[in-house]
Amino acid sequence: METFEPEPIFPHELRDAWPALSRDERVESFKLVPHATADDFFLSLTAPEQAELILAMPPGERRTWMRLLAPDDAVDVVQAAASAHREALLGELDEATRREVQVLQAYEEDEAGGLMNPRFVRVRPEMTIDEAIGYLRKQTREQVETVYYAYVLDARQHLLGVVSLRQLFQAAPDKRVEEVMRRDVLTVTENTDQEAVGRLFAGHALMAIPVVDAERRMKGLVTVDDIVHVVQEEATEDIQKVGGMEALDAPYFKVSFLGMLKKRAGWLLVLFVGEMLTATAMGHFEEEIARAVVLALFVPLIISSGGNSGSQATTLIIRSLALSEVRLRDWWRVMRREVLAGLALGTILGGVGIARILIWEGLFHTYGEHAFLVAMTVGVSLVGVVTWGTLSGSMLPFVLRRLGFDPASASAPFVATLVDVSGLVIYFTVAAILLRGTLL
Amino acid sequence: METFEPEPIFPHELRDAWPALSRDERVESFKLVPHATADDFFLSLTAPEQAELILAMPPGERRTWMRLLAPDDAVDVVQAAASAHREALLGELDEATRREVQVLQAYEEDEAGGLMNPRFVRVRPEMTIDEAIGYLRKQTREQVETVYYAYVLDARQHLLGVVSLRQLFQAAPDKRVEEVMRRDVLTVTENTDQEAVGRLFAGHALMAIPVVDAERRMKGLVTVDDIVHVVQEEATEDIQKVGGMEALDAPYFKVSFLGMLKKRAGWLLVLFVGEMLTATAMGHFEEEIARAVVLALFVPLIISSGGNSGSQATTLIIRSLALSEVRLRDWWRVMRREVLAGLALGTILGGVGIARILIWEGLFHTYGEHAFLVAMTVGVSLVGVVTWGTLSGSMLPFVLRRLGFDPASASAPFVATLVDVSGLVIYFTVAAILLRGTLL
Repeated sequence: METFEPEPIFPHELRDAWPALSRDERVESFKLVPHATADDFFLSLTAPEQAELILAMPPGERRTWMRLLAPDDAVDVVQAAASAHREALLGELDEATRREVQVLQAYEEDEAGGLMNPRFVRVRPEMTIDEAIGYLRKQTREQVETVYYAYVLDARQHLLGVVSLRQLFQAAPDKRVEEVMRRDVLTVTENTDQEAVGRLFAGHALMAIPVVDAERRMKGLVTVDDIVHVVQEEATEDIQKVGGMEALDAPYFKVSFLGMLKKRAGWLLVLFVGEMLTATAMGHFEEEIARAVVLALFVPLIISSGGNSGSQATTLIIRSLALSEVRLRDWWRVMRREVLAGLALGTILGGVGIARILIWEGLFHTYGEHAFLVAMTVGVSLVGVVTWGTLSGSMLPFVLRRLGFDPASASAPFVATLVDVSGLVIYFTVAAILLRGTLL
Repeated sequence: METFEPEPIFPHELRDAWPALSRDERVESFKLVPHATADDFFLSLTAPEQAELILAMPPGERRTWMRLLAPDDAVDVVQAAASAHREALLGELDEATRREVQVLQAYEEDEAGGLMNPRFVRVRPEMTIDEAIGYLRKQTREQVETVYYAYVLDARQHLLGVVSLRQLFQAAPDKRVEEVMRRDVLTVTENTDQEAVGRLFAGHALMAIPVVDAERRMKGLVTVDDIVHVVQEEATEDIQKVGGMEALDAPYFKVSFLGMLKKRAGWLLVLFVGEMLTATAMGHFEEEIARAVVLALFVPLIISSGGNSGSQATTLIIRSLALSEVRLRDWWRVMRREVLAGLALGTILGGVGIARILIWEGLFHTYGEHAFLVAMTVGVSLVGVVTWGTLSGSMLPFVLRRLGFDPASASAPFVATLVDVSGLVIYFTVAAILLRGTLL
C-alpha cells in the first residue's frame, strides 16, 4: 500500500492561483505551504484575505497568525472582518497588542493615525553609536515595522531627531547619537489625511515618516510600503468619479452586479434629470427650429464641443488639486489662464466649423441661400460655448472644494451636462441675433 | 561698523518656499542651508531641480553634489539636464559611477532597469550571521540604496535568496546565512514596465524588489520610495487621458500656455471632426425634423445619456485594466455583464424619461396629441442608446489594448462622441418605426 504524501506548495505558485481559489481551497492550500515561507506568504496577503483565512481556520490555529501581525495590520484585519467576529479576533492578541489595536481603531481609516504602526525603533540622544546599535538589535525582537530608521526621543517621548541605520553603521562607534542625528525631521500628525501623506512620500522619496502629536511627542510611524496602495486607491477613486460614477471601492469582478448598478445608476439619474433641462431649453426655441430646421442640425456638434472642452478643463484641475500642484487660492490665476485657453480653443474649433459648412455648401449646396450666415452663427457660438465650457469646467472643482465637497465630483459628464443647457442658450441667442430678418 | 552675517536657513523653510523661488534665489538660499542638513535637503529635491541647482553652481562646486547621488538618481539628473550639459555632468562623477550611469542610461526610463540602483547589499550563503552583519556594515560605506535587505548571491551573481536586516539581528550569530534566508524571492526583470512594478509594490507591501536578468543574475534593486511617484504619475496620465487630452507630464503651472494648448487642442479637434458626423446624420433626418419638430427637442437628452453611460463604462474598464483587475482575456465576461448593466440602466432612464414627458403633457399640454407615442419613442431609444453606450464604452479599451494602444485613450469624450452619432441613428430609426402614419 502506498502512503499519499501531499506535495508542498511554493508560495509564488499559490500567490498566482490565489484569486481563483474558493475560501476552502485557500485554507487547504495554505496548509501545504512549507512552514519556513508560510509567514511571508501570509504577510503578503491583503487584510480582507488575511481575515478570511484566519476565520476559516479552527480556533486553535488562529492565535499564531493574529500574533504575527504588526498592530497597524492587526487593526486592518479586525476591521476587515464582519462585526460579529471582531471581538473573537481581538481576543487572540496578547494583552499589550490588544490595547494598541484598540487605540489605533479610534483613528479614521484614511488618516495618518489609521496607517501608522505604534512600534518603532527608539534610541536616546546620549547613547553612543555602539550602544544604539546594540539597543536597536534588541528591539528588533519585538514587532517593529522597520529598522531602517531609529528615532531619537527624550524621556517624555518628544521627537528630537532621526538616525538611519546607514548613519549608525558609518559613524565612529564611540560618537554619541545626538552628534550624528538629523534634527530637521519631516513629520505628520495623527489627523493628516492619507492623500497628503501619499503626496509627502511621492515628493520626498522617504522610507518612513514619523507621526507626532501637537506637542511633537512621537506616536508611531507610517512606512512607505503601506502608502503605495493608498496612492493607487485614491487615484482609482478619482478616476471613477471623473468618469461620472461613485467610487467602486473594490475590483470590478469583486463588486456584485446590483452593487455596481447602484453606484452607476445614481449619478446617471442625476445627470439625466439635469439633462432634461435641455428638452425645456429646446422647447423655448421650438419656433426658431420650425422656421430654420438647419439650426437643429448643429445642436449635437455645438453642445458636445462645450462638453468636451469642459471635460478636459475639469479633469486637469481636479488632478492638479489632488496633487496640490494647484491650491484653492490659485483660482484667479487658473481662471485667467483658462479663459484665454477657452478663447483660443473656441477660435480654432469655430474656424474649422465655419470652413466645414462653407466647403459642404460649395460642394453639395446643403445649407441653402443663407449658408454663410449659418456658418457664422455656428462659428461664433463655438467660441462662446467652448470658452464657457472651459471656464465652468475649470472653476467647478474650486467651488466644490470651497464648499467642502470632493472636487472630483465635478466629473466630465457632470460638467458636460451643465454646459449642454447653457450651450443651447448661447447657440440660439447667437442665432437670434445673426439670423434675424433672414432665416428667423 | 556692523558686520552682516546672513542667518542660516532651515531646510523645512526652504522646502516650503522652493516652488516660488527663481533659479538664482534657489542657488543663493541653498548656500545658506547649514552644511549638516544640506545633503538631505539636496537629496529631497526632484531630479530636474537637482540638475538646475548643480548647473547654476560654479564648476568647482558641482562635483560634491553629483557624487552625493546614487547611480540611479545620477542618471535621472543627467537626463533632466539639456543635452548640451550632460557630458559635463557625467564628467563630475568618479570613473566607476560614470560607467554604471552609462549602463543605466541604456534602459528605458519607464522600465525596471531605468528605476533600479545597481548597488545593493550582497552576502554569501556560507557566511555566518556575524560575518554577514560585519560585511554589511562595511558595504554601507559605499552608496548602497538600502541596507534593509541583503541579497544572497553565489560566485556568479545568481540570486539565491534574501535576508532582512531584522532576520540577521534576530538570528543566532553563528548560524549560516543560507539557514535563515528566504529562497522564494519576488523579482522583476530589467524590462518589466514600471506600471507592473508599481502594482507589485502596491499588492505586496514590500520595501524593495531585486531586478534579475534571464539567468537570474542580480542586476540591481528597485526600492519602494522610488515607486510612489511612479504610481502617482501613471495615475495622473490616465486621469488626463480619460478626461480627453494628452498627458501633460508636468504640473499645471509648470506647463507653458502654448504647450498646454497644443496638448488640449489636438484631441479636441479630433473629437470635433468626429462630432461633425452628427451634423451629417442630422442632415439625413432633416425632413423628419421639419415634419415633427418635437423630435429635435429630445436630441440632446438622448445623445448625452448615451455619452454619460459610455463614459462610466470606459472609465471603469480603463482603470481595471491598468490595475490588472481585469485582463484582456476577460473581455467576454465583461461584455455579458455590461450588456446587462446597459439594459438595466437604459430601462431606468427610459422609464424616467417616459414619465417626464407624460407628466409635462398632462400639466402643460406641451407635446401635442401624439405625446404618448413621442414618450414611447424617447423611452425605447433611451434603452437602445444607453445599452449601446455602455457596451461600446466597455469594449473600446479592450480593442485599443489588443491593437497595442493605451486603453486610456478611450477617453470619456471619445466614447461620448462615438456614441453621439450612433445615438442619433438609433433615435431617428425608432421614431421612424413608432411614428409612421402619425407624426411622420
